[in-house]
Amino acid sequence: MAQKVEPIDILVTLNQHYLKPVSVMLVSLFEHNPQQHFRIWLIHEEIPMADLQQLQALVNHYQQEFTAVKVDGEQWRQAPTEDRYPIEMYFRLLCGELLPQQLKRVLYLDPDILVLNSVVPLWQLDLGESTFAAATHTGMTNLVTDLNKLRLGTDHAYFNSGVMLIDLQRARQLVHFADIQDVIATKSEYLLLPDQDLLNYLYGREIKEIPEEIWNYDARKYAVYFTRSLGENDLHWIMSQTVFLHFCGQPKPWEARHDNRFTALYANYQQLTARLLARLS
Amino acid sequence: MAQKVEPIDILVTLNQHYLKPVSVMLVSLFEHNPQQHFRIWLIHEEIPMADLQQLQALVNHYQQEFTAVKVDGEQWRQAPTEDRYPIEMYFRLLCGELLPQQLKRVLYLDPDILVLNSVVPLWQLDLGESTFAAATHTGMTNLVTDLNKLRLGTDHAYFNSGVMLIDLQRARQLVHFADIQDVIATKSEYLLLPDQDLLNYLYGREIKEIPEEIWNYDARKYAVYFTRSLGENDLHWIMSQTVFLHFCGQPKPWEARHDNRFTALYANYQQLTARLLARLS
Repeated sequence: MAQKVEPIDILVTLNQHYLKPVSVMLVSLFEHNPQQHFRIWLIHEEIPMADLQQLQALVNHYQQEFTAVKVDGEQWRQAPTEDRYPIEMYFRLLCGELLPQQLKRVLYLDPDILVLNSVVPLWQLDLGESTFAAATHTGMTNLVTDLNKLRLGTDHAYFNSGVMLIDLQRARQLVHFADIQDVIATKSEYLLLPDQDLLNYLYGREIKEIPEEIWNYDARKYAVYFTRSLGENDLHWIMSQTVFLHFCGQPKPWEARHDNRFTALYANYQQLTARLLARLS
Repeated sequence: MAQKVEPIDILVTLNQHYLKPVSVMLVSLFEHNPQQHFRIWLIHEEIPMADLQQLQALVNHYQQEFTAVKVDGEQWRQAPTEDRYPIEMYFRLLCGELLPQQLKRVLYLDPDILVLNSVVPLWQLDLGESTFAAATHTGMTNLVTDLNKLRLGTDHAYFNSGVMLIDLQRARQLVHFADIQDVIATKSEYLLLPDQDLLNYLYGREIKEIPEEIWNYDARKYAVYFTRSLGENDLHWIMSQTVFLHFCGQPKPWEARHDNRFTALYANYQQLTARLLARLS
């Protein structure tokens, strides 16, 4: 095994339904970053021990570290947690409080992502005065961003919350449970995508923008990126440059009806992951 | 490392131009068969030592065996070797003579293949009285097969030579250099695809047919297979069932203008291979 560098801290927050996708995401992360040392942090409320052990075995197979942080749901019960506000949303925004105080920085990743290249340039990004780094999903024009600005009354870009580099020291000062509760209580009707809207409404000014083609490629929009780049961002470019391929929206790539240029790639990592889990169990 | 079973002997025959594709093919083979013990046999005429050492390092990285068999070109010079008849064609058909006598069976693979699942069922196939196992590429109808029968005057299916399981003991009895020379001398104008046509014309009756959707999936023909299977053979089916995904024809999947449902998958293994070779050099 090659020399290990400083650990890279990865955060995932999810419930039992996303255990398979997050396993696939982690396998792609490890396979494409074979020389890095990762610490995987999972913040959750009620994932059964047997499932956690399976995830731990997967991470350990790659000689990486895994820590599950179980949050006592009681203290969060005052927060509205309908279907639209899963409790994992709070864990994401409030990870500064929930992760060990000595952690200074964490990279949050959604489970419906494939990692294709080295995460090191993002991990080492100079955040300047910002608390977060994230990408916008502008698509062909800025129409979506403009609509979201109008809807949320913000004057900055609308960021996707699926990939977030978080400066935990700043987040511990900035993000407060009471503020989130307040927004939900007073602005609930405007929040279409709860945690993403909360992030943008409350903390949009604290986010440094990173290029979406590299750090949060929307897998539904191959034609848009290809056209916008005048043909430069073809599939070979993506596979050598894009780091996070994000399977936003529906259908999800593990569903039979998903059928685009990235389905076979996703299914390949699904297969590798399923086989590996079968061997480890 | 898990327990090793009996070795599986893989044959490749190529010139310098196919070193990168064959590396990608081998990486996909090893990544999808992590518990097997492979011996890779490369029959060649003039690949430089430095290139062979790089290929050896790649194979050894996966704790597998690599042997290059260098054939003295002089003894083959009497054979016609225009562009249409590369000398590697003879190596393929006459591998029984060129590989060690103790080898009883070998699995020949073209370099423009991705391996997606376990090769064990083919390796352990009961060949019955046959010398070879191979798949036909029938496409939607049997038109291509029928045309080839007409052209070559054979009464059996027309087989693709990109994946061939070879019983070497029988091949040593059956395949003779003089017969090949004779066909080239007298039937040359009918041979469109030299080694594939030779295989079919001379030895078509000695070939056991294996299902192409599993063992020699033509990556250009997703729509044909999908339709013919009434929608069963979708991308998730392929990734869990197909073993050899064969990038037949032009453009090749490592070229920029290749753009179909399997391009991203190929480019992914290209990336993994390039990164691994960079680390090993």
